[in-house]
Amino acid sequence: MDITRVSDIAQHDGQQVTVQGWVYNRTDKGKLTFLLVRDGSGFVQCVAFKGDLDETLFDRIRHIPQESSVVVTGTVRADKRAPGIPGGYEIGISDLQIVQAADEDYPMALKEHGVDFALDHRHLWMRMPSQWAILRVRATVISAIREWFDTNGYLNMDTPILTPAACEGTSTLFETPYFNEGMAYLAQSGQLYNEANIFAFGKVYAFGPTFRAEKSKTRRHLTEFWMVEPEVAFCDLDQLMDIEEQFVAHIVKRVLKDRRAELESLGRDISVLEKIEPPFPRISYDEAAEMLKQIRDETDDPEKKELLTFEWGMDFGSPHETELTNRFDKPVFVYGYPTQVKAFYMEPWPGRPEVCKSVDLLAPEGYGEIIGGSERISDHDLLLQRIKEHNLPREAFEWYLDLRRFGSVPHSGFGMGVERTVAWLCGTEHIRETIPFPRTIKRVYP
Amino acid sequence: MDITRVSDIAQHDGQQVTVQGWVYNRTDKGKLTFLLVRDGSGFVQCVAFKGDLDETLFDRIRHIPQESSVVVTGTVRADKRAPGIPGGYEIGISDLQIVQAADEDYPMALKEHGVDFALDHRHLWMRMPSQWAILRVRATVISAIREWFDTNGYLNMDTPILTPAACEGTSTLFETPYFNEGMAYLAQSGQLYNEANIFAFGKVYAFGPTFRAEKSKTRRHLTEFWMVEPEVAFCDLDQLMDIEEQFVAHIVKRVLKDRRAELESLGRDISVLEKIEPPFPRISYDEAAEMLKQIRDETDDPEKKELLTFEWGMDFGSPHETELTNRFDKPVFVYGYPTQVKAFYMEPWPGRPEVCKSVDLLAPEGYGEIIGGSERISDHDLLLQRIKEHNLPREAFEWYLDLRRFGSVPHSGFGMGVERTVAWLCGTEHIRETIPFPRTIKRVYP
Repeated sequence: MDITRVSDIAQHDGQQVTVQGWVYNRTDKGKLTFLLVRDGSGFVQCVAFKGDLDETLFDRIRHIPQESSVVVTGTVRADKRAPGIPGGYEIGISDLQIVQAADEDYPMALKEHGVDFALDHRHLWMRMPSQWAILRVRATVISAIREWFDTNGYLNMDTPILTPAACEGTSTLFETPYFNEGMAYLAQSGQLYNEANIFAFGKVYAFGPTFRAEKSKTRRHLTEFWMVEPEVAFCDLDQLMDIEEQFVAHIVKRVLKDRRAELESLGRDISVLEKIEPPFPRISYDEAAEMLKQIRDETDDPEKKELLTFEWGMDFGSPHETELTNRFDKPVFVYGYPTQVKAFYMEPWPGRPEVCKSVDLLAPEGYGEIIGGSERISDHDLLLQRIKEHNLPREAFEWYLDLRRFGSVPHSGFGMGVERTVAWLCGTEHIRETIPFPRTIKRVYP
Repeated sequence: MDITRVSDIAQHDGQQVTVQGWVYNRTDKGKLTFLLVRDGSGFVQCVAFKGDLDETLFDRIRHIPQESSVVVTGTVRADKRAPGIPGGYEIGISDLQIVQAADEDYPMALKEHGVDFALDHRHLWMRMPSQWAILRVRATVISAIREWFDTNGYLNMDTPILTPAACEGTSTLFETPYFNEGMAYLAQSGQLYNEANIFAFGKVYAFGPTFRAEKSKTRRHLTEFWMVEPEVAFCDLDQLMDIEEQFVAHIVKRVLKDRRAELESLGRDISVLEKIEPPFPRISYDEAAEMLKQIRDETDDPEKKELLTFEWGMDFGSPHETELTNRFDKPVFVYGYPTQVKAFYMEPWPGRPEVCKSVDLLAPEGYGEIIGGSERISDHDLLLQRIKEHNLPREAFEWYLDLRRFGSVPHSGFGMGVERTVAWLCGTEHIRETIPFPRTIKRVYP
């Protein structure tokens, strides 16, 4: 039996097709019953007209419970009013087989649900159009990420999840006993391993789950999330920004090409995304600090003034990032952060040791940081000094120091969080909707 | 400055190029010094002729330590004898800048090293041609896996690593304390979550790291490895085998196309891989058992007879798999295993409850199982019965049972281990060489 996918329905206008899927919704109107059928690739309206069908079949269709699995046969016809994703076509039913009639007590009926209820039923919630659309965008973002790296000479090198030493304190690390080897920690980043890999492979990327046992309960935090981390030999901070803007623009373009119907179904303003083309504005931390001062000086709103309190040397908070990015309709690079707010391995700015060669990319519309990156220290003695200053155990970093002893080169890399990127592209407020089974401080089920 | 990648060197025959990389080896012969330079994309011979260069430069080249980082400029010329990967071209040096002169005590000099020493220095070991080649093949295998799924209508849906309940006993699970939620376990498989995902997306694949706290110390075991797991709605066991053979053949083809030089450098017999075309032989467990009986009956070797001891109902061991696959020059499907040696969720064979609709794919040349898959139980009551028989906690499986209550469909899926597949394709004996930073029962460093 030849099965047609709903996403391909427009190619079958006027033809008889068979679709396999599930009944998402049923509406009865006199002699007509409308089924909204979803098959994973899309949602399509299927219409049963009493006059066309024998009585048993029509009766079966009229009483079919939501979420029943079905095989529908019928003729495709264009109809602009037909709901669905992508929509615009419907199927006039000539036959319908029920694979399994769903139990009548489906808990995720079409109404709105509380967050905890929805998350407890995540395995069913994801069948709803909004969740389905967001996770389809996610899959395309992941595919676009890999496509860009694979076609630009990067090699995917997986970095380990189980790691021996804690890079920057153990307070936000998940730990797991490891046979007789003491405690292992779930990696927060593959960066240090990436740095080893570039000396064998030149340009690499790691892409896997990352873990933070942070006690943050904001809408922007997950304890388990996916991060892509490229690292490039012979690459400085300016070249890194060139890479980042090409990379991000590619992802946006792919999503607009392949997931436009999903974005539209989410009510996303697509014109905003269509502006995301290189080059992106590049401002220094100093300039950003100056802009914030101006904004603060100009406002008459005492609450805003308070929220935007800022002094040189601080990291930006969410209100600062929102104000800054509101000035631009593209993602904005902020580079040259104070050394004291960034990690130990960042290359100092020439002649200004209080500043480092770091760069964050802030998404527009208040979605905040989606990429953090930097040029890494390539000098052995300086790196050793930093390790001591940060009270890190030297033994654990001997292999990392080796990289500066045997063929050190200028090199840079960044990390991009998948979920934050998807949230931005979809216009989703809560990051928990951008991953199939979210993990937060209070949730490890289902 | 325009940088040429060593992998593209053939496109620059007769031209002046600049290459950035590291000195892998240096050989002096009278007025000539040969450098084997690697840049991550390949290895190329660079030749310094005393007569062409000023004295300081020639002297610098003659004394350059192994692993120094360099920028080499010179003219490309074809020379069949020139070593390298891909080889066949060399660069006549006109200029060379040393970025960093490596320390003289490089621990991974060109000789052979003990396994523990090599693994302790994995960050340097991977620079050697054999390890470099294997990990390049790995990256291509991963890319080919995703390419096949992405172009065949599957959606990548990441399944969680931190999971609440232990599916099949906790003895081989890594555990990690999870805030106030008790113990979480590192996932051994994303399959159960994949099964939820297909009801929203039709065809999905999960692809991530997987964890087994097994106390096995064989050359085929890692505690952390990567597995790809597709799951398909409306798919039975025969259709699953169709998918698997198309999928595996695609991976082999991509590797032969993009990584031939690497396979040749490893001494892999490529003609063996060129035979991997669908269809693959499909034999039942009963037939396999019969074949093993025959082989055992026919041999005069008492040791072999002993090793091949076998009774219906047993799982195959490594010697059985090797004997079976030696009869074929393609991967072999063995389907219909005894229910008692397989997982609780496998669909029983119609009319033969002692047999289940499972299938393993065994690689040729004794590389053993690379894929395990099955049709899953789609009936709610039967699945519940199995959960009880296996003494699994019903509460933890309520969401999994839901999938059989609300639109159940026949469905199937499989899991393929990346490292075993890479070991087979590369002809590598030890699986630990097929992942950048291997984790075994005794190793979590570097």
